[in-house]
Amino acid sequence: MVTKNQIKLVASLQQKKYRTQHKLFVVEGKKTVLELVEAGLKVYELFAETGAELGRSIDYIELSNKDFKQISGQKTPSGILGVFHIPEPQGIAEMGWVVALDAVRDPGNLGTIIRLCDWFGITQLVCSEDTVDCYNPKVLQATMGSIARVTINYVDLETYCRNTQLPLYGAFMDGDVVYKKQMSHAGILVLGNEANGISTKIAALVGERIAIPQFGEATAESLNVATAAAILLNEIRR
Amino acid sequence: MVTKNQIKLVASLQQKKYRTQHKLFVVEGKKTVLELVEAGLKVYELFAETGAELGRSIDYIELSNKDFKQISGQKTPSGILGVFHIPEPQGIAEMGWVVALDAVRDPGNLGTIIRLCDWFGITQLVCSEDTVDCYNPKVLQATMGSIARVTINYVDLETYCRNTQLPLYGAFMDGDVVYKKQMSHAGILVLGNEANGISTKIAALVGERIAIPQFGEATAESLNVATAAAILLNEIRR
Repeated sequence: MVTKNQIKLVASLQQKKYRTQHKLFVVEGKKTVLELVEAGLKVYELFAETGAELGRSIDYIELSNKDFKQISGQKTPSGILGVFHIPEPQGIAEMGWVVALDAVRDPGNLGTIIRLCDWFGITQLVCSEDTVDCYNPKVLQATMGSIARVTINYVDLETYCRNTQLPLYGAFMDGDVVYKKQMSHAGILVLGNEANGISTKIAALVGERIAIPQFGEATAESLNVATAAAILLNEIRR
Repeated sequence: MVTKNQIKLVASLQQKKYRTQHKLFVVEGKKTVLELVEAGLKVYELFAETGAELGRSIDYIELSNKDFKQISGQKTPSGILGVFHIPEPQGIAEMGWVVALDAVRDPGNLGTIIRLCDWFGITQLVCSEDTVDCYNPKVLQATMGSIARVTINYVDLETYCRNTQLPLYGAFMDGDVVYKKQMSHAGILVLGNEANGISTKIAALVGERIAIPQFGEATAESLNVATAAAILLNEIRR
C-alpha cells in the first residue's frame, strides 16, 4: 500500500530543494533502477506500476496507473521507479585523474560526462557549487548506472583548485595542441560552462592550457563540453 | 505584413512531411539564423518578434508576439526565426573521410555529430533513410551553423556501403583497440543506432572493426554514439 504522503514525497523529489531536504533521489526505468540496486546504493523504496515487472526477488510497492503517473516525472512513465538515499559525501581522493566541472549547467552534458568518467576509469568528479545537481532526473537519465561508480563532490572550486597538489589542465582555444602534450599520470581536467568556458578565476589557476585542434575550414565555434570531455579523457588514457 | 497562410506554412515546417513537401526548413535564434545567412543558404523569409533585433541590414518581417508564438516551435521563443530552402542534394564525394550513420534516431546526437564533422573538417555525412531528418528543429538546435558546411545525403546505406571503394570502419565492443590501428587517409566511419549499434547487414560489410578501450571497472555498457563519434574522429585526425 502507498499513502498520499508517500506519493507527495516521491513526486517532490523532482526538485532539488526536496532532494536536499530528504537526502533522497529518484530514478526511473527498470535497467537503471536494477543497476543502482546491484551497485549497492541504499534503497528507500521501489515502485512498479500494475503490469510492469521488476523481474527480481526484490520488494517493491505496486501502484495503480493513476498513482504511478503522480510519482513519475516522465511524460510516458516506464513503470519502474526507485527512490534511493543520496550517498554520504566521501571527500575527494587526491590520486590519479580527477575531472572538475566549472558551472556545467546542462543536465544531459553532466550525465554524459559522468558516463565518460566511468568508461575511462575516473572515479573522482568535482563540481563547482553552480554546476547542475547530479541527482537531477535528467542527469540520471543520461548517466545510466554510472552514477554509482563515480564519486561526486560539490565544492568551492576555486578553493579546491588553489589547494590541490595535482597539476591543473584546462581546454582553451589558444592552448597547446593536446596531441603533442605529454600528459602526466595524475592531474585535474577542468571543463567549463557551456556558454562561457572556464571562468576567469579558475583559468588563472590552470597551469596546463590544452586545445583540441580544429580541421577543415575551422569555423565551428567550439565543441560541446561533453564531446570535448570525451576527446580529452581519451587523450589522457591512450 | 504576414498572412494567415504564411503563419500556417511556417508552423507546419516543424513536421518532416511539410518540410519535404515545401523543400523548406526553419531555424530559430539570431546567431544560427545569421550564420546560415552568412554561409550562403538561400533565405525564404526571416521573421523577428516586435522588440527583437536582427542587427543587420537584412530584410525581415516583424511579427507581433502573438503571431510569433504561432510560428515558433519553442516554448520560450527567442524572437528570431529564419525559413530557408533545403539545399539541392549534391551527391556524395568519394574522397577523404566520410561519416555514415546507420539509423541514428536522437536529434541531439545527429546535431552533435554534424558539429563534430564540421570541427574535424569532414564534409561528407551519409545517413541511412531511417536516420532522423537533419532539418528537424532539434537537430538544428544542436548543430548551430555547422549544417551549412557539411554535405548530408540520405541513401540506402547497404547499397552505398556495398558499392564504395573506400575502406569501411565501424566501432564494435570486440573490435581492435583503435589506438594501435593505423588509420588510412580516407575511409568511411560507420556509426550505429543508439540501442542496437550497427545493423547486421551493414556490420557484415565493415572490414575494419575498431574499439574504444574501457578502463577501470569497465561496467559501463557502451558510450553514447555522439561521444564515440567525438573520440573516433579525433583518432582519425590526430
